[in-house]
Amino acid sequence: MTARELSITADDVHRAAEQLRGRIHRTPVLRSRLLDQLSGRQLFFKCENFQRGGSFKIRGATNTIRSLSEDERRRGVVAFSSGNHAQAVAIASRAEGVDAVIAMPGDAPRSKVEATIAYGATIVRYDRMTEDREAVASSYVEREGRTLVPPYDDVRIMAGQGTAALELIEEVGSLDAIVVPVGGGGLLAGTSTAAEGRALVYGAEPENACDTRLSLAAGERVTIPPPDTIADGARPQCPGRLTFPVIQERVAGVLTASEDEIVEAMRMVLTRMKMVVEPTGALGIAVAMGAGLPSELKRIGIVVSGGNVDMDVLAMLLGQGG
Amino acid sequence: MTARELSITADDVHRAAEQLRGRIHRTPVLRSRLLDQLSGRQLFFKCENFQRGGSFKIRGATNTIRSLSEDERRRGVVAFSSGNHAQAVAIASRAEGVDAVIAMPGDAPRSKVEATIAYGATIVRYDRMTEDREAVASSYVEREGRTLVPPYDDVRIMAGQGTAALELIEEVGSLDAIVVPVGGGGLLAGTSTAAEGRALVYGAEPENACDTRLSLAAGERVTIPPPDTIADGARPQCPGRLTFPVIQERVAGVLTASEDEIVEAMRMVLTRMKMVVEPTGALGIAVAMGAGLPSELKRIGIVVSGGNVDMDVLAMLLGQGG
Repeated sequence: MTARELSITADDVHRAAEQLRGRIHRTPVLRSRLLDQLSGRQLFFKCENFQRGGSFKIRGATNTIRSLSEDERRRGVVAFSSGNHAQAVAIASRAEGVDAVIAMPGDAPRSKVEATIAYGATIVRYDRMTEDREAVASSYVEREGRTLVPPYDDVRIMAGQGTAALELIEEVGSLDAIVVPVGGGGLLAGTSTAAEGRALVYGAEPENACDTRLSLAAGERVTIPPPDTIADGARPQCPGRLTFPVIQERVAGVLTASEDEIVEAMRMVLTRMKMVVEPTGALGIAVAMGAGLPSELKRIGIVVSGGNVDMDVLAMLLGQGG
Repeated sequence: MTARELSITADDVHRAAEQLRGRIHRTPVLRSRLLDQLSGRQLFFKCENFQRGGSFKIRGATNTIRSLSEDERRRGVVAFSSGNHAQAVAIASRAEGVDAVIAMPGDAPRSKVEATIAYGATIVRYDRMTEDREAVASSYVEREGRTLVPPYDDVRIMAGQGTAALELIEEVGSLDAIVVPVGGGGLLAGTSTAAEGRALVYGAEPENACDTRLSLAAGERVTIPPPDTIADGARPQCPGRLTFPVIQERVAGVLTASEDEIVEAMRMVLTRMKMVVEPTGALGIAVAMGAGLPSELKRIGIVVSGGNVDMDVLAMLLGQGG
């Protein structure tokens, strides 16, 4: 597939940035001399953990909902997610005056369910073992005419997620590389499109959930078994149908981090940079601190994708000799 | 004492800002819709917890060290501190190529001693029970001709600390009030001078360590017994000789927070805003969330003064049903 045929262009990302203006936080770019020393690089942390809803997901959700017609807005939206996308769709829907139904698994963390309800969405619980979440969501599309806001496999979502990299480059100037975590690939596809060749773009995956890395090696989408990783945002079992060709065309590579490296990155950022990152949000940091990234790449942007971590996980980190 | 006779003017703060340019982080100003809702105000958090050395103290230390003559630089500096000022003087000294001796109590937390050593300073331990820290530091002034970098009672220190408020106002425009924590009063004196009447400036003290509030009520510096508060930066037992008249003249008032309110503010910021603040750094937040601040004040700047907190204190927070 050539670049010409890809679903998303840099113009889509620039248009998304227009749609988002004033609707989301302009998150800060932080530096750490200590982490620079330890990595032998200059690291620029784009802090989406401070974003509305605690992650970058508000970008794609807002861009998608703002693209709806008057008729679509009236009929509302539906989404399925146990995590950050749920909160993002709830927040964006309320901000735009659109009714939202979110399908969440029955075993989703209570804190996330409550946060999503607090943002005004209607929650539908389903059984992860016996029900298919896409089917649950589809029933709302068919019965109520709602628009599905997918978590990643959508041009409007990818374009929205790519706006974090636009802001990063605008703020710090030229970068050798940008590293972002990969779940379904929306952030990675959007970032690599936004970069337009100005920086190499790398994905960061858990070793235990490296479906995108395997897919790139195979030249086609590979599905892995349900992975065992602390990085809950990286648990999709294969790259998206739309995101994968973009990643194939525009991404320099996908690097992996072990579970220990993810935890160590979270702890270092908590204790030294004074901020909370979720495990998925620490993936790019773990990769940038490691040896996998070519050593000639010196100025590295990292999208710290989110900060929504259960407090018992944080307490666990602190208990482990942090 | 009239304003005319005070030791520090807004010009001092502006000159300090020039001295600091490019030498410290421009820390971000963060917002939180949740905390805005809970407080019924618009809160602007100036995040000095992300500053070099983890607190605003680098501002005054750098300004002071940069004001030294060539001869003074050659002879080096000395400071006494068990906390953020120690790290700040160590970092600023190394950056300016000046030798530093820091007197720290024998029971200072190991992590802070190690951090200060890592920044290249020479540490001198003293016994808090039997030795006077000022006398320990003075011996280095007399024997080695070093310049003492005091923690707060110095115009260059006050002026440096005031630059955080300059940046805050520059970034967010007009504010009704700015709230900052009070220990010896360097940050409060500098902030109230920097504000130049553009915003009311309030101090925030622990109920258990409200020497500045008592002093304002008495019209003179009052000394309290060694206070029992988690906010270690607010433990000085009386306002400074130079800081107090500035505070008397320029500060709208000093409000207090209970120990529980301080801990609750830390926990809320950690879980909702995803950032680590130290107990003293949470004082302004606790006051801004409380009922003490006049309700007609809506746009409130808060200097989040630091993020250096022992990890066991954080773990304690998370363990308490956070």
